[in-house]
Amino acid sequence: MPILNKDTTVCISLSGRPSNIGTRFHNFLYEELGLDFVYKAFATDDIEGAIRGVRALGFRGCSVSMPFKEAVIALVDDIEPSAAAIESVNTIVNDGGRLTASNTDFEAVATLIDDHELDTALPVLVRGSGGMAKAVVAAFRHAGFDDLAVLARNEAAGSALAEKYGYRWSSEEPAPGPGVIVNVTPVGMSGPDADELAFSADQVRAADVVFDVVAFPAETPLILEARAARKPVITGADVIALQAARQFERYTGASITPDQIARASEFSRAE
Amino acid sequence: MPILNKDTTVCISLSGRPSNIGTRFHNFLYEELGLDFVYKAFATDDIEGAIRGVRALGFRGCSVSMPFKEAVIALVDDIEPSAAAIESVNTIVNDGGRLTASNTDFEAVATLIDDHELDTALPVLVRGSGGMAKAVVAAFRHAGFDDLAVLARNEAAGSALAEKYGYRWSSEEPAPGPGVIVNVTPVGMSGPDADELAFSADQVRAADVVFDVVAFPAETPLILEARAARKPVITGADVIALQAARQFERYTGASITPDQIARASEFSRAE
Repeated sequence: MPILNKDTTVCISLSGRPSNIGTRFHNFLYEELGLDFVYKAFATDDIEGAIRGVRALGFRGCSVSMPFKEAVIALVDDIEPSAAAIESVNTIVNDGGRLTASNTDFEAVATLIDDHELDTALPVLVRGSGGMAKAVVAAFRHAGFDDLAVLARNEAAGSALAEKYGYRWSSEEPAPGPGVIVNVTPVGMSGPDADELAFSADQVRAADVVFDVVAFPAETPLILEARAARKPVITGADVIALQAARQFERYTGASITPDQIARASEFSRAE
Repeated sequence: MPILNKDTTVCISLSGRPSNIGTRFHNFLYEELGLDFVYKAFATDDIEGAIRGVRALGFRGCSVSMPFKEAVIALVDDIEPSAAAIESVNTIVNDGGRLTASNTDFEAVATLIDDHELDTALPVLVRGSGGMAKAVVAAFRHAGFDDLAVLARNEAAGSALAEKYGYRWSSEEPAPGPGVIVNVTPVGMSGPDADELAFSADQVRAADVVFDVVAFPAETPLILEARAARKPVITGADVIALQAARQFERYTGASITPDQIARASEFSRAE
């Protein structure tokens, strides 16, 4: 039987090319918790019109993905520190017509750094200089790490990102050594670079913790290499599930357990 | 399990104060026909923003109710004759960004006149002068009826409506006589006028056919009186189901049977 009625609360996502993950993650948990909510991903090429629609139709929540994470800043009413810190929005909450933007990617990375009790004295090597790299670098700064290098071929983007948070830029992978290594490039993602290692095997073996932001697959070559070397790992699947969970809590006001997050994440990735 | 995914086609309705009927009617039939569609009613006070949203999010269909049936004319790309004839829109179809407006209330009334093989030589007495009365009067004109009186206390609205379609206006109920009598006022609707008869009992007994546009309840005092007098009746439930069916067909491209319409209508009214 149809589950929707006129009073069902609607949350959506906006992106250029949506995946099915968010739709499955959120709807799984609505079902699990018995909430009268529904979630639907939308592709759009008119972010201003879409946000007009969010207001006019009273959608409760709006997740924001590429390429709109910066453009929506001008279209909301309030910006939380998580979004302001990286000038990037992935979450909009609509409180009776007032739109508040936040960034749960930043929050998720910060939480994972915290939960894994990463030692702030360790050096950090972040490969990548895009939007997600900003969230990662800002989260390490927020957590109190002082020694971080942004590894990026693109000097303009790499040095700008590093300088923004008081870190340094490097164009070449340094000699293997202790510390946290983080991949925030598409290397290892399903597609053309699927088989490639984002860091050298020596770098992995020398590292203390290996963190890959690539979410598809969860077990990238880098993560598999790290597991083989018995290193603690943080995966992109962890990030995407936790950031979605924080969105879910903001939209619904409900709290969810780590077990519920894990099962929703598994369900969301099963298709 | 959640039924939605990112590619599910979305249809909505827009009104000031939505009922649950459309949401239940359309979703029932999506389920019945196994269509990957979902339908949701929305209240809004920003029709322009809502239509911006329809375009930006690529909603396939948008049903329009009070008080937006005239206002949306300026916001669409094409107007079909059914909407142009009465300058009122209740249906918008989105073909890849091009919005076409129509009026399935008009179509439903025209179809019911046709299906019941009403004799165009009969005189018609229409009580009411609002938006739905326009659809009814235009449909009788379209069907070829020449003798019609608009019965309305409001002279300005009543005479304007009558003149627009070449009919006459009357402020007082005429003496009982043969013909078709049609109620297009809220008299008999659930609420303050629920017990009132829209025409005198004598008028009902003299009539050939009794037509009540009030949809809640389906069995209004007028319809009950007509049934007791063994008159053929057309009910507001017939109109609302048929107009929704025409919307359904436009949005989905699927055809539905009278039996499916009847069951969807029953389901939609069961709550």
